[in-house]
Amino acid sequence: MKVYKIPEATVVRLSIYSRQLHYLRDEGIETVSSEEIADSVGVSSAQVRKDLAYFGEFGTRGVGYRVDELLGYLTKILGLDQQWNIVIVGAGKLGSALALYQGFRERGFAIKAILDADENKVGKKLEDVLIEPLDVLAERVKQHNINIGIITVPAAVAQQVTDQLVAAGVPAILNFSPRVLRVPADTILRNVDLSVNLKVLSFNLSYNR
Amino acid sequence: MKVYKIPEATVVRLSIYSRQLHYLRDEGIETVSSEEIADSVGVSSAQVRKDLAYFGEFGTRGVGYRVDELLGYLTKILGLDQQWNIVIVGAGKLGSALALYQGFRERGFAIKAILDADENKVGKKLEDVLIEPLDVLAERVKQHNINIGIITVPAAVAQQVTDQLVAAGVPAILNFSPRVLRVPADTILRNVDLSVNLKVLSFNLSYNR
Repeated sequence: MKVYKIPEATVVRLSIYSRQLHYLRDEGIETVSSEEIADSVGVSSAQVRKDLAYFGEFGTRGVGYRVDELLGYLTKILGLDQQWNIVIVGAGKLGSALALYQGFRERGFAIKAILDADENKVGKKLEDVLIEPLDVLAERVKQHNINIGIITVPAAVAQQVTDQLVAAGVPAILNFSPRVLRVPADTILRNVDLSVNLKVLSFNLSYNR
Repeated sequence: MKVYKIPEATVVRLSIYSRQLHYLRDEGIETVSSEEIADSVGVSSAQVRKDLAYFGEFGTRGVGYRVDELLGYLTKILGLDQQWNIVIVGAGKLGSALALYQGFRERGFAIKAILDADENKVGKKLEDVLIEPLDVLAERVKQHNINIGIITVPAAVAQQVTDQLVAAGVPAILNFSPRVLRVPADTILRNVDLSVNLKVLSFNLSYNR
């Protein structure tokens, strides 16, 4: 599949469409229009068609998309037809919540290692994964062919953990700490600010009522 | 301030700009260009200017924006110059992580009540907030003038909790459960899929390397 430079906002929307298509498939729904997808995720149907058009021709005019087929394409486009191996660094409340989040496992994301500096946490298990000390990081990355490091440590140590992940060869990092991190140009970094969603609600509460 | 219909993607970006401006201010930086804001959050500088243009004229050509001033405007635009009162329903790992997340408190979001159906959790405290049983929901909403309900209960009970929040008069809901929820047209609903960020990394790992 030839893929041109895709805007990140499109990739985010494709992820959301794929979630909705999973839901439709589970409900036994076989076809869906761009309008129905659009309505369910809060964008215009033109946006849905434009996002999908980056990847070729989908759907039939007047009929819409076959849910199964479109979900299959999106799964492939998003790289979710393969398993991604994950290490979580930081087994506090948020790290533990992510480790236990069923949505990850169902979608090809395998949590292979969980590390924490706290001796009281080391040795405990989250689901079937043992919490281990930070000094096994490089070893576990190699052993499990880790693709993604999730950072849920306090801000003060986030850059240090990032440097260790980069040095160990982890190509992608998802940062939940509030710290702005520096990574080499060939490392993929994505920052998650849990308060963004509350800010959007704040905006809507302020102006749309 | 007259505000036209703003695309949700713009509001999300404004939230991210405000985070970056907080960071710049904390670093003691006084002026910033649209290019610098754009680079730091991964969009084009034209996008930054377009997003800000919805709300009037900001910045000076050739000089850029005064960090303090722009942050003040964004804070006002996003409705973050007032306090929003929150109830969290579901004090499991994710609910607890959100209750303890410092980023919320710093930005005008006050967690006023935390409810859970589990007797073993009721009576414990998260920071300074007591975990209480679900049946005090309507009472707490009224008492604390709750604006936002955060749902972190299992999927099976998410709709029931939503109905209770709506009945109690909560105008906005942030849903972390994987269930698609039904709400009346005048209730603001925002769904958070924690796996979207991993899917974007999956896409980038698949195609950009």
